[in-house]
Amino acid sequence: MKIYETRQAPNPRRLRIFLAEKGIDLADFEIEQLDLAAGDNLSETFKTKNPMGGVPVLEFDDGHCLSESMAICRYFEATHPDPPLMGDSAESQAMIEMWNRRMELHLLLPVAMAFRHTTGHFSDREAVFPDYGADRAKTATKMFDFLDRHLADESHIAGDDYTVADITALAAIDFARVIDLRIGDRPHLAAWYERVSARPSAKA
Amino acid sequence: MKIYETRQAPNPRRLRIFLAEKGIDLADFEIEQLDLAAGDNLSETFKTKNPMGGVPVLEFDDGHCLSESMAICRYFEATHPDPPLMGDSAESQAMIEMWNRRMELHLLLPVAMAFRHTTGHFSDREAVFPDYGADRAKTATKMFDFLDRHLADESHIAGDDYTVADITALAAIDFARVIDLRIGDRPHLAAWYERVSARPSAKA
Repeated sequence: MKIYETRQAPNPRRLRIFLAEKGIDLADFEIEQLDLAAGDNLSETFKTKNPMGGVPVLEFDDGHCLSESMAICRYFEATHPDPPLMGDSAESQAMIEMWNRRMELHLLLPVAMAFRHTTGHFSDREAVFPDYGADRAKTATKMFDFLDRHLADESHIAGDDYTVADITALAAIDFARVIDLRIGDRPHLAAWYERVSARPSAKA
Repeated sequence: MKIYETRQAPNPRRLRIFLAEKGIDLADFEIEQLDLAAGDNLSETFKTKNPMGGVPVLEFDDGHCLSESMAICRYFEATHPDPPLMGDSAESQAMIEMWNRRMELHLLLPVAMAFRHTTGHFSDREAVFPDYGADRAKTATKMFDFLDRHLADESHIAGDDYTVADITALAAIDFARVIDLRIGDRPHLAAWYERVSARPSAKA
């Protein structure tokens, strides 16, 4: 199998951390790095693999492709169920999905929009609205506050166990540093951050 | 169990359609309608149920709550596996998740942003960027074009079977009419639309 990814981008990092936590070795895959700034992901060839143009993409040996980070993670969750990162009961699967989506919609997405609309990194291919970007950065900061309160009572984002929701939050928080958004001295969020960053998977 | 929802909003509709397809009767739930425009979802009481303020929310009999439409759907997928709407194998689960997320990120989300930023429906509680809204409407229109090409070869969004990806696309397309975005004379998309709209669940 082959993975198309971009080393610095947050979504491919989510997949790399997920695989590391599963004990799946990245060296078992062929890896192709795409330069998003250069538009490698907009080529006609890549569009046949993912018409939406995003990374990561998982290419199976028969040539068919799977995209969307969480869809790829869900594939490996099913084929490598231990340790579970997306829950192992109806209720835990649902609660973890809830927390992961909160991290996506209220943290990773605002950070990504703040990045794109304040830096104009992809202004060669999309309209840029700097005021909207600044507003999204404020939303991400509010989520830092929310998470600091939430993590006063919880060891991990979705409760007692490390899950995909921690992976999404970590990838978002580290990517936010690119636009100088930092978690700062929020004690509970900082303690969680230190805990999840110390796991070997964080370096994946 | 109790469901907090809003009749006109697209996310609660996704859940209602999902339950109908599962043969789960809405009459078995206590239902509370929230008036989002009046800010019912911003009350301190509701924030204890979903701090993110969104609908739908599923409240269990012991009082704990589950939010995020797809997390609630995943709960019912696990407790009522037939018919599967999120796949029944590692590969089908992943492919359906991919297509559902494409419908969310490239259709439902742009439509929702176009609605919020062009109408200012929630301007009492959020900053509004009309140019960004107009840009999002254009993105949604491009996705109509993409889907028209895609559905030339497929009976449903994620392949042969009706899945949650069809539900997300249907909810997004019907909600888009509020801001006068219509699928128009795109023949393959229109044929799919007619097919999924004819299912009894579409009236849920």
